[in-house]
Amino acid sequence: MPDEGVTPRSVDYSRWYLDVIREAQLADYGPVRGTMIIRPYGYAIWENIQKGLDRRFKETGHHNAYFPLFIPYSFIQKEKQHVEGFSPELALVTIGGGKELEEPLIVRPTSETVVNHMFTQWIKSYRDLPMLLNQWANVVRWEMRTRPFLRTLEFLWQEGHTAHATAEEAEAEAMRMIEVYRDFAENDGAVPVIIGRKSRLERFAGAVHSYSMEAMMGDTRALQAGTSHNLGQNFAKAFGTQFLDQNNQLQFISQTSWGLSTRFEGAVIMVHGDDKGLVLPPKLAPIQAVIVPIWRKDQERPAVMEGAEEVRRLLLAAGVRVELDSNDQSTPGWKFNFWEMKGVPVRVEIGPRDVQSRSVVLARRDTPGKEGKLMGVAVESAAERIKGLLDEIQTALLTRARAFLASNIHDVKSYDELLEVVTTGGWARGWWAGSDGDETRIKEDTGATIRCFPFEQPPGPGTCFLTEKPASEVAIFAKAY
Amino acid sequence: MPDEGVTPRSVDYSRWYLDVIREAQLADYGPVRGTMIIRPYGYAIWENIQKGLDRRFKETGHHNAYFPLFIPYSFIQKEKQHVEGFSPELALVTIGGGKELEEPLIVRPTSETVVNHMFTQWIKSYRDLPMLLNQWANVVRWEMRTRPFLRTLEFLWQEGHTAHATAEEAEAEAMRMIEVYRDFAENDGAVPVIIGRKSRLERFAGAVHSYSMEAMMGDTRALQAGTSHNLGQNFAKAFGTQFLDQNNQLQFISQTSWGLSTRFEGAVIMVHGDDKGLVLPPKLAPIQAVIVPIWRKDQERPAVMEGAEEVRRLLLAAGVRVELDSNDQSTPGWKFNFWEMKGVPVRVEIGPRDVQSRSVVLARRDTPGKEGKLMGVAVESAAERIKGLLDEIQTALLTRARAFLASNIHDVKSYDELLEVVTTGGWARGWWAGSDGDETRIKEDTGATIRCFPFEQPPGPGTCFLTEKPASEVAIFAKAY
Repeated sequence: MPDEGVTPRSVDYSRWYLDVIREAQLADYGPVRGTMIIRPYGYAIWENIQKGLDRRFKETGHHNAYFPLFIPYSFIQKEKQHVEGFSPELALVTIGGGKELEEPLIVRPTSETVVNHMFTQWIKSYRDLPMLLNQWANVVRWEMRTRPFLRTLEFLWQEGHTAHATAEEAEAEAMRMIEVYRDFAENDGAVPVIIGRKSRLERFAGAVHSYSMEAMMGDTRALQAGTSHNLGQNFAKAFGTQFLDQNNQLQFISQTSWGLSTRFEGAVIMVHGDDKGLVLPPKLAPIQAVIVPIWRKDQERPAVMEGAEEVRRLLLAAGVRVELDSNDQSTPGWKFNFWEMKGVPVRVEIGPRDVQSRSVVLARRDTPGKEGKLMGVAVESAAERIKGLLDEIQTALLTRARAFLASNIHDVKSYDELLEVVTTGGWARGWWAGSDGDETRIKEDTGATIRCFPFEQPPGPGTCFLTEKPASEVAIFAKAY
Repeated sequence: MPDEGVTPRSVDYSRWYLDVIREAQLADYGPVRGTMIIRPYGYAIWENIQKGLDRRFKETGHHNAYFPLFIPYSFIQKEKQHVEGFSPELALVTIGGGKELEEPLIVRPTSETVVNHMFTQWIKSYRDLPMLLNQWANVVRWEMRTRPFLRTLEFLWQEGHTAHATAEEAEAEAMRMIEVYRDFAENDGAVPVIIGRKSRLERFAGAVHSYSMEAMMGDTRALQAGTSHNLGQNFAKAFGTQFLDQNNQLQFISQTSWGLSTRFEGAVIMVHGDDKGLVLPPKLAPIQAVIVPIWRKDQERPAVMEGAEEVRRLLLAAGVRVELDSNDQSTPGWKFNFWEMKGVPVRVEIGPRDVQSRSVVLARRDTPGKEGKLMGVAVESAAERIKGLLDEIQTALLTRARAFLASNIHDVKSYDELLEVVTTGGWARGWWAGSDGDETRIKEDTGATIRCFPFEQPPGPGTCFLTEKPASEVAIFAKAY
């Protein structure tokens, strides 16, 4: 299994990605084309993603609920842009309980329509607002080209849905939630992101504004890792979702929706992984420290195992997620490779001499060779040292990824410069005043799309690199997953 | 809303149940017949159910994973009993991405088939066993008669799936998990249960043995609140799931599966609820204590609110899930009714005189009137008193439900006695050596079914109340939800 190793990233990045997912036992292909089984190790990472997000949602006043998987076909047709965007991707249930249904049911690709159906019943007065909901759910989109975690027929996600009395409140909420995502991505995932506004062509089907966070993968491609939409009154008007304001006037509600999916796990793999496999940020790692006991002679085993067990108990008591690899059938070298493949942040080695000196050796997953080793760490202080090390690794991963991101964003002043950047690898940033048609042409010519108009803008105005018209914003162009 | 109150249980138990779900804002009907929206308060109870179970599953060595929603139609046909049991209840996807599918897809009613498909790939050797998995998921069964939480077209549940080297291990696992359910139901849900074996007619489609826990609702009907199945090698043989044993011989694996669903929330409502609404066991209550500030004159408000806020902070620090109802637009009396409807275990009242004496009044949801009131509880000791009170309420609810269960199980020695018990209300327990046909006839005549052969048996043998043959076991007959 881990003996086989993975294809080096430099040889074939796509194969490296699939190899890591297989060898680290994160996921497997399901029997239906494009579906995925999330294996226990991959699911444990998702559980940590869920915890990090769910805590933040509750701290910002959101409540979880659950809306049905099946949506009447007629619902999707009520919002014009929405139906155009989602129609090609729908899975339809046409038979139920052995009988042909009168109206086919949509397996939800997203829940705006059914949420609005309920908002229309629940929201009567300004006193019912804001209504701040979230759900953890599976959704289905009939994708033709799939890749584990990044794009699958069915995926797991959370979708937030909120209703507000005014357009300003909805806009503030959409902005607040993209910031919550950024905070989570950077602080829990050690994944640096650029947050900004989507172009008109790239925004969510039914939204007024879409905001996204864009992360840079190890091959410099972009990945949209979370989105937040200001839906305005589009769905409210389609579903007649109105409330009585303080002057007793009927008003349409303003809404937002925002989502982050198992796709984020793909980002974690591709931002941090190396040729030895996965590298996990400590906050998302199911196992933060693995203890590998080492002995040669059988008579050394009991003392080493006892020492290893003591360290395990100390780490557990200190709140570290720890695993003791006591398997007798594999060598320490095999175990080193195995746990490196799994991306465990810290390895704890303990042998007969360590037991005698009541010490252990620590090795960082993110720093290869001697540089990443700490020798002779006293057992008594091991837990504290490891907790410190986990913090250091968390920070180091973010710092490294930030440097990589910064060094691969290039300012471009002409279409030729853009072409060179997106062809040789990297993100191109340039002043933009092009039309939708210009944007489409760049996409067709280069494969690169506008990832976003970043919130953080240089002082302007500038000159559009394509049209040479005056431009008030820079856009980021990149090839994306 | 809560002003309307609920239909008294004695008038119409079914209406009372639906009224409580509506008035306590637990759930709503979805737009597709038989589907349900779980509203935030109902979902928060489910989250506490999930936490209580998930902790127990992990403590017993199980890992969470996620299997796909869509299953190829051919899979369901591989296990003969399974296809017979589930075929009438299937929802089929026949169109995906705008095209008719070559093979329809099943929306999972349960996941044994797809799990076995993966077990066949993952399990090669005895070293891979046991494999102990669980998933939290939605499933769909095309039910004709639905009722919120109890029976819905789509429901949320967990389904455990385990693989073992021997029949004995699978049997031990099935028994262990029904015991885990019992522990959860009684200790977290305060729902006493009878655990036992299902009859041949009532067991899971594809199982060798099915075990269930049966709870008694407030109207004495039974509710199957969790099941655990020993699947033997039925699915292994259908899917060719084999492993090399220690003697290098190919063997079929033995399996279990076990599930508990949102149905359990229906049990919590019906076991504890009363004519004022929901009564929640403290361990599952989203809000364990609600603080209601009371004042008459505006100038009293600031001091009362300050005192209430102090108590809130103290309870929060003590780990109590607390809510301060600071709404100015409703009266204390309205709030009392509202939070009683929501089943909050402890109400904390604080008025101007309480602020002066630095004390509060506590009221238990489970004990009406003066008996349930504690006057003049010092603010300094309020948190400890409330934590103690929550423990007392948790125990009191279980004790009360146990007494109700015990007093409504009647030993029967003849068919006439059984008829009387199940007609007037209650469970009938009697020695049973009848055939499948006898069992079916009783079901058709009386509406009562064998709920289980309880593990706890009186000393025997006895004489079958119907056939007068020697019988080695007693069975429990009851009408059930």
